[in-house]
Amino acid sequence: MWDFPRSDNTSTAFQREQAITVLHTVEPPYVAVIFTSTRTDTDDGYDRTAQRMSQLAARQPGYLGHESARSDGLGITVSYWATEADAQNWKLVSEHRIAQDRGRDTWYRDYSVRIAVVTRAYGMDRR
Amino acid sequence: MWDFPRSDNTSTAFQREQAITVLHTVEPPYVAVIFTSTRTDTDDGYDRTAQRMSQLAARQPGYLGHESARSDGLGITVSYWATEADAQNWKLVSEHRIAQDRGRDTWYRDYSVRIAVVTRAYGMDRR
Repeated sequence: MWDFPRSDNTSTAFQREQAITVLHTVEPPYVAVIFTSTRTDTDDGYDRTAQRMSQLAARQPGYLGHESARSDGLGITVSYWATEADAQNWKLVSEHRIAQDRGRDTWYRDYSVRIAVVTRAYGMDRR
Repeated sequence: MWDFPRSDNTSTAFQREQAITVLHTVEPPYVAVIFTSTRTDTDDGYDRTAQRMSQLAARQPGYLGHESARSDGLGITVSYWATEADAQNWKLVSEHRIAQDRGRDTWYRDYSVRIAVVTRAYGMDRR
């Protein structure tokens, strides 16, 4: 589990706007990890860790991409993986495990992780 | 497809805070519909329709709940259903179909819908 907020504070509004696109992944089947969370009031390194986890995840085998949003205190991050083993391997990466422990102890009030197999997907052009 | 923003503008910050909780659904397997979207600049009845769709969905057979967040222009709504047939039936509800058409024509710049079978789920207490 980890959420990946878009925390590039150095980019301009224009650059951020350009970067916001809906992710269109490969054809199913593939795996989605749905991570929903509420945060505590404690920041203490959270943004830095989130950014680092985002970079680390992207280097993992089978990583297909992720999407993240947070509003009114509820965060949703969905990461996509080629196989369940790929998603599981990311969970077990040692630096990620340390971040997970800190998340439980410090940053998250509550969270839920759901592992799901995407069986169908369509975009605006296809129903 | 539809997203359900938390659009209760009449509630106080305190009430909203109380309402923000991570959704813990039934034991898997069940179905998740992951809807990600970017919006156009056109509002034109969007909030009202979103709220109405949220109410309608909750009355559908097999509805287990939904979670929604939007930030930096990207929205993610995940709705949970007992079966794929239940999710499909919601897609076909006539009032919802009309909203989907308006969404495509007016409110969404782009979107993606993914239908997924949740095979495992855990919260903060269980890894």
